[in-house]
Amino acid sequence: MSRFIEIVEVGARDGLQNEKVVLEPADKIELVRRLDACGARRQEVVSFVNPKRVPQMAGAEEMIAELAGAPGRSRIGLVLNERGWDRAVAGQCDEANVVVCATDGFGIRNQGASSAEQIATLAAIAAKRQAEGGPPISLTISVAFGCPFDGEVSEDQVVAIAQEGAALGLAEIALADTIGVADPWTVRKRVEAVRKVIGDIPLRMHFHDTRNTGIANAYASVEAGVRILDASVGGLGGCPFAPAATGNIGTEDLVYMLERAGFETGLDLGKLIETAHWIGGKIDKAPVSGLSKAGPFPKPAE
Amino acid sequence: MSRFIEIVEVGARDGLQNEKVVLEPADKIELVRRLDACGARRQEVVSFVNPKRVPQMAGAEEMIAELAGAPGRSRIGLVLNERGWDRAVAGQCDEANVVVCATDGFGIRNQGASSAEQIATLAAIAAKRQAEGGPPISLTISVAFGCPFDGEVSEDQVVAIAQEGAALGLAEIALADTIGVADPWTVRKRVEAVRKVIGDIPLRMHFHDTRNTGIANAYASVEAGVRILDASVGGLGGCPFAPAATGNIGTEDLVYMLERAGFETGLDLGKLIETAHWIGGKIDKAPVSGLSKAGPFPKPAE
Repeated sequence: MSRFIEIVEVGARDGLQNEKVVLEPADKIELVRRLDACGARRQEVVSFVNPKRVPQMAGAEEMIAELAGAPGRSRIGLVLNERGWDRAVAGQCDEANVVVCATDGFGIRNQGASSAEQIATLAAIAAKRQAEGGPPISLTISVAFGCPFDGEVSEDQVVAIAQEGAALGLAEIALADTIGVADPWTVRKRVEAVRKVIGDIPLRMHFHDTRNTGIANAYASVEAGVRILDASVGGLGGCPFAPAATGNIGTEDLVYMLERAGFETGLDLGKLIETAHWIGGKIDKAPVSGLSKAGPFPKPAE
Repeated sequence: MSRFIEIVEVGARDGLQNEKVVLEPADKIELVRRLDACGARRQEVVSFVNPKRVPQMAGAEEMIAELAGAPGRSRIGLVLNERGWDRAVAGQCDEANVVVCATDGFGIRNQGASSAEQIATLAAIAAKRQAEGGPPISLTISVAFGCPFDGEVSEDQVVAIAQEGAALGLAEIALADTIGVADPWTVRKRVEAVRKVIGDIPLRMHFHDTRNTGIANAYASVEAGVRILDASVGGLGGCPFAPAATGNIGTEDLVYMLERAGFETGLDLGKLIETAHWIGGKIDKAPVSGLSKAGPFPKPAE
């Protein structure tokens, strides 16, 4: 089994999406470039949503024009509907990450569409790509471990959506613990169940640390064979359903855990910690990641 | 394999030991009683150190006189030397937890004795107990995954100390990641290695969340067969070697993860969260645990 774990940096998108301070596109572009310098090869950088609804994500066109097509870097745009897909294609995004909610309760409140309607949209987008071209498509199944409106989400619900996605010939499928409620035992079972139905399509996992289980869930995923994980520098981000809670698992915490155990990530821990403090200064909020507070171990040679 | 996980509550001892606000013994006694009401059966409540050196731990005699011998509850006193043992015996502590540092660097700075000298002290205490009686003895091997002074700690170092402890007929042996540097892969390997040499003696694990790996390390321990874990309510505590860092893994975070996966702990999550906020008010510091910020999932029925 490979010792390389690919970390998809989502700080500029998921990380900033729930922050109170709304950054200018130029600052977000600088964040992405600083993360490039940390070694990030894949970054989710924009969300093709309505900037009137999500002002934190304004300037997607400007950003992607500046960022897409960089050699050896993949810039991912989040897509919630066909309009978003058209914007991703027009902007020449390197990848499109299409979200399908596992529950109707979350889907209708968050994207104005039921889970089934979102699957139909995904199929329409995949067909459009087949006919007209466009970037590779990832599917992210959100609220895959629990929903703030519908409560528990069953493995069957998640597996069914993954199976539909797999039939569409997608480049990657991801399970997202959007509100941070998963435990590592369930993660492991769900990873195994989904891998059975998606065959060779790579599985990515996306964890929030809302209830302090995010790093344990990442560990359980790797133990179950997952080799692609989302994380955000500094543990940026929050949860609109738990205002005091923390956000995505921190990139530097994940890198620390993995590299301490002999995995490779291609990321520079020291630079990540610097970047966590830099972006913390920009949004006026100290980073919450453990590494940004405690530093690496053993201490790097001076 | 049993689905019951025993959580040893260390909030009143390890949790408060590094806090800036020094509580009166009466407040610490109230914390212990509130934790009793949460369902805690074993609590580390005092440290028999010199209160001039560690003012947070003053009043040990007063506390243990009040607390020891309660039906169905075990009150543990931390012991670093023979003087501490004598105090634990005199106070009729229900259990004594004797610390041996895995490294000389930490041992000499923290306890004024090398690792070998501490093992000799442990042997002397065990002999004294054999001859004169006294409470059951646990051994906690501190800095078992890394030392702020000596750096990396090898598995062999830890296994050797565990083996010496096992030969003394102790009631329990624990590995402590005192400065929060362990990763879950190493935890699992070290648990397996130590279990090989301690036979039927129960193994307890003690994690700090300094680098956000504490809950992952707890999960890895349970997967490796461990059934006893330390935790502190609210994630109380800090790390003198990383002033900005957080403390022990939070009891409510651990309970949440375990019970969500079908384990039993006998602890009441809602009451733990209340207690975390109560003690946070006493020490003027909001609790850092995920559950105290985000609440349980699914939401309890109203």
